Amino acid sequence: MRGYSLETISENVHGRLYGEPELVVNRIMTVDEAGHGDLAVVFDSKIAAGIEGSRASAFVVPMKIPDIKRNIIRVPNPRLALIQLLNLFHPRPEREPVIHERAVVSPRAKLSPGVSVGAGALIEADVEIGAGAWIHPNVCLGEGSIIGDQTEIFPNVTIYPGTRIGRRVRIHAGTVIGSDGFGYVNLESGEQGKIPQVGYVEIEDDVEIGANCTIDRATLGATRILSGTKIDNLVQVGHNSEIGKHSILAGQVGLSGSVRIGNHCVLAGQVGVGDHVQIKDGTMVGGQSGVVRDVGPGRWVGYPAIPVIKALRAQHLFVELPALRRLVRDLERRLTELEGREQSHDK
Amino acid sequence: MRGYSLETISENVHGRLYGEPELVVNRIMTVDEAGHGDLAVVFDSKIAAGIEGSRASAFVVPMKIPDIKRNIIRVPNPRLALIQLLNLFHPRPEREPVIHERAVVSPRAKLSPGVSVGAGALIEADVEIGAGAWIHPNVCLGEGSIIGDQTEIFPNVTIYPGTRIGRRVRIHAGTVIGSDGFGYVNLESGEQGKIPQVGYVEIEDDVEIGANCTIDRATLGATRILSGTKIDNLVQVGHNSEIGKHSILAGQVGLSGSVRIGNHCVLAGQVGVGDHVQIKDGTMVGGQSGVVRDVGPGRWVGYPAIPVIKALRAQHLFVELPALRRLVRDLERRLTELEGREQSHDK
Amino acid sequence: MRGYSLETISENVHGRLYGEPELVVNRIMTVDEAGHGDLAVVFDSKIAAGIEGSRASAFVVPMKIPDIKRNIIRVPNPRLALIQLLNLFHPRPEREPVIHERAVVSPRAKLSPGVSVGAGALIEADVEIGAGAWIHPNVCLGEGSIIGDQTEIFPNVTIYPGTRIGRRVRIHAGTVIGSDGFGYVNLESGEQGKIPQVGYVEIEDDVEIGANCTIDRATLGATRILSGTKIDNLVQVGHNSEIGKHSILAGQVGLSGSVRIGNHCVLAGQVGVGDHVQIKDGTMVGGQSGVVRDVGPGRWVGYPAIPVIKALRAQHLFVELPALRRLVRDLERRLTELEGREQSHDK
Repeated sequence: MRGYSLETISENVHGRLYGEPELVVNRIMTVDEAGHGDLAVVFDSKIAAGIEGSRASAFVVPMKIPDIKRNIIRVPNPRLALIQLLNLFHPRPEREPVIHERAVVSPRAKLSPGVSVGAGALIEADVEIGAGAWIHPNVCLGEGSIIGDQTEIFPNVTIYPGTRIGRRVRIHAGTVIGSDGFGYVNLESGEQGKIPQVGYVEIEDDVEIGANCTIDRATLGATRILSGTKIDNLVQVGHNSEIGKHSILAGQVGLSGSVRIGNHCVLAGQVGVGDHVQIKDGTMVGGQSGVVRDVGPGRWVGYPAIPVIKALRAQHLFVELPALRRLVRDLERRLTELEGREQSHDK
Repeated sequence: MRGYSLETISENVHGRLYGEPELVVNRIMTVDEAGHGDLAVVFDSKIAAGIEGSRASAFVVPMKIPDIKRNIIRVPNPRLALIQLLNLFHPRPEREPVIHERAVVSPRAKLSPGVSVGAGALIEADVEIGAGAWIHPNVCLGEGSIIGDQTEIFPNVTIYPGTRIGRRVRIHAGTVIGSDGFGYVNLESGEQGKIPQVGYVEIEDDVEIGANCTIDRATLGATRILSGTKIDNLVQVGHNSEIGKHSILAGQVGLSGSVRIGNHCVLAGQVGVGDHVQIKDGTMVGGQSGVVRDVGPGRWVGYPAIPVIKALRAQHLFVELPALRRLVRDLERRLTELEGREQSHDK
Repeated sequence: MRGYSLETISENVHGRLYGEPELVVNRIMTVDEAGHGDLAVVFDSKIAAGIEGSRASAFVVPMKIPDIKRNIIRVPNPRLALIQLLNLFHPRPEREPVIHERAVVSPRAKLSPGVSVGAGALIEADVEIGAGAWIHPNVCLGEGSIIGDQTEIFPNVTIYPGTRIGRRVRIHAGTVIGSDGFGYVNLESGEQGKIPQVGYVEIEDDVEIGANCTIDRATLGATRILSGTKIDNLVQVGHNSEIGKHSILAGQVGLSGSVRIGNHCVLAGQVGVGDHVQIKDGTMVGGQSGVVRDVGPGRWVGYPAIPVIKALRAQHLFVELPALRRLVRDLERRLTELEGREQSHDK
């Protein structure tokens, strides 16, 4: 890995350098793990306390932290600076596009220039792959699927037939897109009759989907993930659901069928959302919450999900239920005593 | 896609047609998304309100909805009609059975007539595959596994050795059947000793299993899924568990070891069931519930799961805990005041 | 399968035999499912009740259970005996190490003696695989990954580049190791800027990881799983998390980013742990709990997780909330009545 001088780095992150401009650092690291020759990025004043004991040679820090006698570069947004620095120190390696000889590509598939296809990948008939897309080993791309330019699909992903994926999308390993929606009809015989799932999945530009997720095809029409949305690992998206733009779904979130998630929503880990529920634009839902009715905007928590302030108050009292009951029983005892004395007065 | 006249369609779904018998529709669609030339299926009176504004050319509707001036076909069970219509409009494509030249099939495997095996699939020694079964690309079928007639196994599925799968079973992409049960013994050294998992998994006829599920083999004996049961995506079934007939497990449900689920049960999304717990025939368990003791029949909800009526009442009061505490404190104040006045009386 | 005499078995498990030393049994089975010729292992006195009705020919039982007129072998730890017996009856089959001709192995990969690589597996450049390791079919091992001696990686696993895996590790089918951590920065545009994930995953010796898990690489530095820890299926481990030695994570557990789990911890099924949370050595967390603040040691339960005794009391009262409210309202009525009479006294 090549190193950069603090001066060069400061220019790259539009920061203000206090220290040695010619000092060269070779690696970006966390404050804890950084050693001699490393540059550490500090996100907030809380972490800034760790600078004293850190062995890093220099630090990128928020504008407002107090003076320290170390090499520091002050920046308005350290997280943004981290992105810039990681891209500087870890440029994406140049890659010669290649269709591996062990890939199986249908003669009826259309591959644009600059497409890579890994060993063991299978590209079925009538698939279209955009320029510069990278299909990793052992991926299965079902018949008639469309993959946009610069999209990257990691190993062992399965894309069912008829899926439409936009540009610059990243789909991590093991994820399954377009499997059957979970739809059955209770028959008089006590058996479940399968509703054929003839819809498809549409994923817009700049979406990222984690590893081992499942996005079901629609019964009719489409299951949709709109542009810029980011989905973590092991997330389930049921048939005919639609997730808006620039939303965040953390790990192990589960959406049932026909759910509507708005734009700029955040669903924390392990949240579950019931059939046909709508979540408004800009809503945040706390971890493990169960959303069984329409919610939003604002922050919602719990099962069933309620506004966070109500939930925090109730959760707080939940732990104190034994004390509350003791108090009530004490009141009961005192009241009974008082009633007795009152009666004796009346006599 | 070929179209059908309303008359033909009405016959197919055993419905009563009100409108133009010779009108041809070309597609089945939801009320919302239907356009000119489409037939929309309406499941209940609630959705029926949407017919007015729909651009569909005709509608399949429940028997009992009021008269509308559109082309409608009344049917007793619109969901059943949907199945019939989807099968009419989307007949399963004819498929020439083929063993792909890039499949790896052990000479010791037995394949019945009409079996398809996709590229990159691996069929180990002593595997038996029934007539008309379809093994998709990159599936791994472990030694000695048995796959029934007409069963379909989607891409990237892993079947561990010794698994027994019935007829007309569908296993979606990425699912793992027969991985080791999670069994360890705490050793005096503080380490965990692994209990070898020498049992197997048995899946009966007409089961459907979603994508990226995990069904563990038994420690001894079998983990069993009985006929007709339907399992959604990302579901975990622990070692030695048994799921009865025609039950439904929604997405992200987790069963620990040696669980017993009866027939005709429904477990909603993200339900967890503890070791050795039994769930009686016909039990419904609400989303995200935690079942730690035997339950059923009827509807159960919450952690730990309790009968739904109790749970709803308690959940309702949970949110009102702050009000309840205020009331109790108010009573305490009033009581103290009363006690004071009472004492002054006594003086 | 070959059989063994009770005498041989008793020696193998260091037990005390009561019954026929020369009787040969052919199979280990559970008490319920055992038949003639089988040996059943009984873990506790509760199951011992089932011995009476069992058709097994002999039983391994805890030291302390009362006398029974069957062939029994008393042992101090039946679970340990089960391990010994399963290893005796089901010795790991001898395997000729082989690199399958349909595997794709980079000429720049280094394979030690005795390594097996299955069909369709892909070993990228600069991968190092230790002696006796077994890479199953369709596994993808990314560039520069290191796999220790005797480690076994089951089919369809994806290992991203730069992953370090120790000795005697077992990784079950479909699991993904080293996919990108879930890290974004909210940009002023309303979009999320991706933080490049340039760290890696390190897994120490004797770890076992279940099927379809996801272990994310670190943003910087490493996501670490220390030696001897066992992880069940469908578990999510977020970027920069660290799990200590000999801990247990049950199915569908989810760890967010930068979580610290100590040594000898047990997280039951579907537990969720929030960002940066620390769980102390020896902590047990109950099923479905949500850990949002540092906890431990001892047993913790609920959302948010609290010590188990508090939680059980509160859960118990939760169900009785309707009764508590009725009592409070009754007290209110009585108090109001008393206040009225008090006032009339004063007049």
